[in-house]
Amino acid sequence: MERNEIPGQGACRIESGFWNRYIGVIRNGVIPYQWDILNDRREDAEPSHAIDNFRIAAGEMEGAFYGQVFQDSDVYKWLEAVGNILMLERDPHLEEQADSLIDLIVKAQEPDGYLDTYFTIREPDKKWSDLLECHELYCAGHMIEGAIAYYQATGKEKIYRAACRLADYLTQIFGQEEGKMHGYPGHQEIELALLKLYEVSGEEQYLRLASYFLETRGTNRFFEEEFEKRGRTTFWNGAKIPEPNERYNHYPYSYYNQFHAPVRQQETAVGHAVRAMYMYTAMADLAAKTKDQELYRVCRRLWDDVTTKQMYLTGGIGATSSGEAFTQDYDLPNDTNYSETCASIGLIFFAHRMLQCETDSVYGDVMEQALYNTVLGGMNYEGNRFFYVNPLEAVPEVSKANPERHHVGTLRRKWFSCACCPPNLARLIGSLWKYIYTVGESRVNVQLYIAGTAHLNTGGQTLSVIQKTEYPNDGKISFTIQGDGERDIEFALRIPGWAENWRFTINGEAVVPDQVEKGYAVFCRNWKQETTIQADFEMKAQFVGANPKIHYDLGRAAMTRGPLVYCLEEADNGPRLDELVLNTEAGIRETARPEWNGYVELEADAVRIKLPEGQDLYMPYRPVKEKVKVRAVPYYLWNNRGEGEMQVWMKAD
Amino acid sequence: MERNEIPGQGACRIESGFWNRYIGVIRNGVIPYQWDILNDRREDAEPSHAIDNFRIAAGEMEGAFYGQVFQDSDVYKWLEAVGNILMLERDPHLEEQADSLIDLIVKAQEPDGYLDTYFTIREPDKKWSDLLECHELYCAGHMIEGAIAYYQATGKEKIYRAACRLADYLTQIFGQEEGKMHGYPGHQEIELALLKLYEVSGEEQYLRLASYFLETRGTNRFFEEEFEKRGRTTFWNGAKIPEPNERYNHYPYSYYNQFHAPVRQQETAVGHAVRAMYMYTAMADLAAKTKDQELYRVCRRLWDDVTTKQMYLTGGIGATSSGEAFTQDYDLPNDTNYSETCASIGLIFFAHRMLQCETDSVYGDVMEQALYNTVLGGMNYEGNRFFYVNPLEAVPEVSKANPERHHVGTLRRKWFSCACCPPNLARLIGSLWKYIYTVGESRVNVQLYIAGTAHLNTGGQTLSVIQKTEYPNDGKISFTIQGDGERDIEFALRIPGWAENWRFTINGEAVVPDQVEKGYAVFCRNWKQETTIQADFEMKAQFVGANPKIHYDLGRAAMTRGPLVYCLEEADNGPRLDELVLNTEAGIRETARPEWNGYVELEADAVRIKLPEGQDLYMPYRPVKEKVKVRAVPYYLWNNRGEGEMQVWMKAD
Repeated sequence: MERNEIPGQGACRIESGFWNRYIGVIRNGVIPYQWDILNDRREDAEPSHAIDNFRIAAGEMEGAFYGQVFQDSDVYKWLEAVGNILMLERDPHLEEQADSLIDLIVKAQEPDGYLDTYFTIREPDKKWSDLLECHELYCAGHMIEGAIAYYQATGKEKIYRAACRLADYLTQIFGQEEGKMHGYPGHQEIELALLKLYEVSGEEQYLRLASYFLETRGTNRFFEEEFEKRGRTTFWNGAKIPEPNERYNHYPYSYYNQFHAPVRQQETAVGHAVRAMYMYTAMADLAAKTKDQELYRVCRRLWDDVTTKQMYLTGGIGATSSGEAFTQDYDLPNDTNYSETCASIGLIFFAHRMLQCETDSVYGDVMEQALYNTVLGGMNYEGNRFFYVNPLEAVPEVSKANPERHHVGTLRRKWFSCACCPPNLARLIGSLWKYIYTVGESRVNVQLYIAGTAHLNTGGQTLSVIQKTEYPNDGKISFTIQGDGERDIEFALRIPGWAENWRFTINGEAVVPDQVEKGYAVFCRNWKQETTIQADFEMKAQFVGANPKIHYDLGRAAMTRGPLVYCLEEADNGPRLDELVLNTEAGIRETARPEWNGYVELEADAVRIKLPEGQDLYMPYRPVKEKVKVRAVPYYLWNNRGEGEMQVWMKAD
Repeated sequence: MERNEIPGQGACRIESGFWNRYIGVIRNGVIPYQWDILNDRREDAEPSHAIDNFRIAAGEMEGAFYGQVFQDSDVYKWLEAVGNILMLERDPHLEEQADSLIDLIVKAQEPDGYLDTYFTIREPDKKWSDLLECHELYCAGHMIEGAIAYYQATGKEKIYRAACRLADYLTQIFGQEEGKMHGYPGHQEIELALLKLYEVSGEEQYLRLASYFLETRGTNRFFEEEFEKRGRTTFWNGAKIPEPNERYNHYPYSYYNQFHAPVRQQETAVGHAVRAMYMYTAMADLAAKTKDQELYRVCRRLWDDVTTKQMYLTGGIGATSSGEAFTQDYDLPNDTNYSETCASIGLIFFAHRMLQCETDSVYGDVMEQALYNTVLGGMNYEGNRFFYVNPLEAVPEVSKANPERHHVGTLRRKWFSCACCPPNLARLIGSLWKYIYTVGESRVNVQLYIAGTAHLNTGGQTLSVIQKTEYPNDGKISFTIQGDGERDIEFALRIPGWAENWRFTINGEAVVPDQVEKGYAVFCRNWKQETTIQADFEMKAQFVGANPKIHYDLGRAAMTRGPLVYCLEEADNGPRLDELVLNTEAGIRETARPEWNGYVELEADAVRIKLPEGQDLYMPYRPVKEKVKVRAVPYYLWNNRGEGEMQVWMKAD
């Protein structure tokens, strides 16, 4: 078994220059940097105290807990990223670090399996007294995910066994049965982790517990009752508050954590976007694992709401910083949005699980839309600076001056006090190989166009697939396929939603697919003889408009090319981008550029409408109009040349 | 002495149809409605309990305090509005109501002069323990203002004497002397009230106390010390907090209440806009009363910052709802702004006091800009619905959906739980006659063009001035002037900042002014013979642009005519106003309309750029362009035809 293998499905190795550079950045940059942070070895960052918390809980050190109540999760996410990276290539030095950490984690675990350093150290008698705010189950979920990744990468069982002990313990505490707590987490995460653990261990009780957490949510008044029990106070500052939650919006407080209704009755995406994504991911996973068509339909309804009514062109989600949350259908402001990197990562998780239920190209389309725009844009090219918030319009002075726009950073930062995004990026990119193919009964689906070699088990044989492509810069992809069995296997290529024209060849001869089904070009044959399929999805730059129900994009256009959304930057176009009006009739010109590992720059005609800059605040409107050419870079590359304005949706004629 | 007279300066009676309708609305609508609210007689509003609080404090009723800690101020503002209205015309029924209220107020006053029902009823041992948050001095200031207005209108001394007792008591409590508290208010207001009381009473101690409050502000650590003393808690919910205030912005907490620096060292307008205006008003008044040129220069610096860098075209101020505050120079978003009605009223107070220091037309210009746009727009035409927030762009669905825009109401409301704006409007409009003229040594200045008759004392004589005009709909104004003395008097007309052309006649003959000085056309002569001056400020519609440092207005134009800013409304132009692009080369057409007491409607050419409304969230940009005519109404009239979109700054070619 290769290390980077999904048991039963196959293995895949990325051989894309584009992606291997990012993977290298994660391996050589993000993971070591984060290790230093966790160990408080960076003078350029606030101490995290994260590993010290484990030392104290393990009895190896004296001291007090320090940091967020969910500080432990940073440690587990690091471990998961390490597991993912070791799956690609073992690294004894890194394993040594991880093993020492694992010793500490296991030592911090209490005899009954409980594991959460905040409560062990600071409030041992308040365990499980505030599920809404205190993130114990959230941390447990990340612990389980980290443990699985490390176990799968190295075969070392220590942390995996600790994860099972923790999960076993949770099955004793939570459940429908009398005598157990009828609670569920304020921040979803444990559900998807338990489903992963079920997948690895085959233990039904983990599936049952995940199902319990999902199905009980929103059916009782658990959060209200625990709020009464602790005297109607909030964990965050101890103050008495009128309701268990802040209202993040005009919605009642229960919407923030998605317990406003039983999950099967939820119809639109509401509340904290990351929480929503993690919950939907678990729901879709449960639907796939239990072949629950009704639950899948619930997931599809939520999926459609998110991706056809509440998603930015960049695959960003969460239109408001107030609660880092969804607002309402078609409410997608460009300058005050949140679009947290982690939310788009969660959307990819969700899409990936939906593909286990149904092979529909919309899932792969959104996966690449989120991946190549918001997710990659969450990190700079070098991989040492991060965005939490991913705006579609940024003006540095405005972000500094205006409180409604303060959350929109215009320079990526090294780290965050709530450090979820960098390790989430690390664990996603480290495991990206898992997202390229999905395998069905006698069928292989290509979901992402990323060069590499895969060995995929389907229809009783192994299909070897060598994918070559310069995607996302070019829409040509070749697959060299060879099977080792006699049976026909369907080889299905996702036709990207952005592609208006495409053609295929097999061994150099033009062909049409045997069928085009739910957005896939399907070729069904015996692959015993090595066969080369070439796909050419015509990738050309275009102007894109938004549904006029999106108020904020009225009279505006964006530029895209293939899966990439483009933006104008001050570095290329000077400041005051909102003075520019695109001339969309003159077309878009493309230039291959060598910088940043190669990308295609776009150029379009525009008019700049300027007013004189005098002393007066207001004056008669006497504009000077200047014909200019504007240059655009892929959104994922923005803010790699210092601070400056950026705009995706331009005024257009 | 006429009732509506400023002692020593003269009297003025408004005879403008435009304004007398508003005054009637205040008299017959706002004041009775507010009386019902204060007495909890309205089923369509939350009980205010305001007068019941006084009953309880007076020992006439059992019960608990209810409402905001500054609930008393609503009562006093009503009294001030009543005083102002009675100054125009006595009304026995209204006086009876006011007298009964006054009996109650005086009975609620404690023997030492203390007056604040919250502390008398609920926390008698916590008086003066939280000046930052608890508004005792704010309420005291409004009590004094209300008392003076009622006294001046009716000559009845009861409430005026109570105000003096309160002020005398304050002089015992506060001051630089050892043994007195060295505090100052968290919400400025007492300062300007004490200066008024000094003006009426001639008692120097009130001037000294006002001066003390202003000059001590920001020079010591009083607020920090009282915060320590009460255990680092906040009044609002009793929670422990890290600093005395929330940080409303990137600024340190002291900026919110303008105690970040001694007032004479303050250079830019920061913090809560209403607090700032009330403080600057007092500073300017103190500078005028003490002829303190240095303090006047401080005021001018702050004035220039507010009006040339932080003010909306509509005379609105306060760019953010976060702290209802100023942000930074040129940060003037149109869709997330605050521009509280009360802040613009405060700006008019400030301008009026600046005119006591120096006759400069910028003060009158801003006074009318704020008055005819934000202030009047704060109320509907009928005077029974109010805006707290006055946006320059409103989209109902967006305000409902998006938390950063929730505060932007798109329908005026009957009342507010923090009910400052309606009574503030009532007291300003009721006293508007005071703002029309300012009188200097042998000089009369016309600040506002409002029809009416005035008798102004200057240069040892009384000048009778009959002003006739259809302003703000027309720029022609005639003055019939007659003096009763021999000395030459300067009669100076403010040349409005918006006027590009003007001409004057005297008794029908074209004349040029004797001089044009600081924005005034000055005519100096003996007025013994009745003389008619006609001014014609050419009032034509124009497109206006903004300084390009205002990011939010780039590529946009607004329409104005005279002092009036215009806006497009959905009622005239359909929804999706941001699809429209003004054609500014085709000019603006004017049509006199009979509705709403008569106004001039503007029409301009535009192109509507539409995208098809389909299922897709994003699609290739294939716009349909349609030539349209857009119609605009004065901003002060917006939202009188139901809920709909509104926009001041339009995309423009």
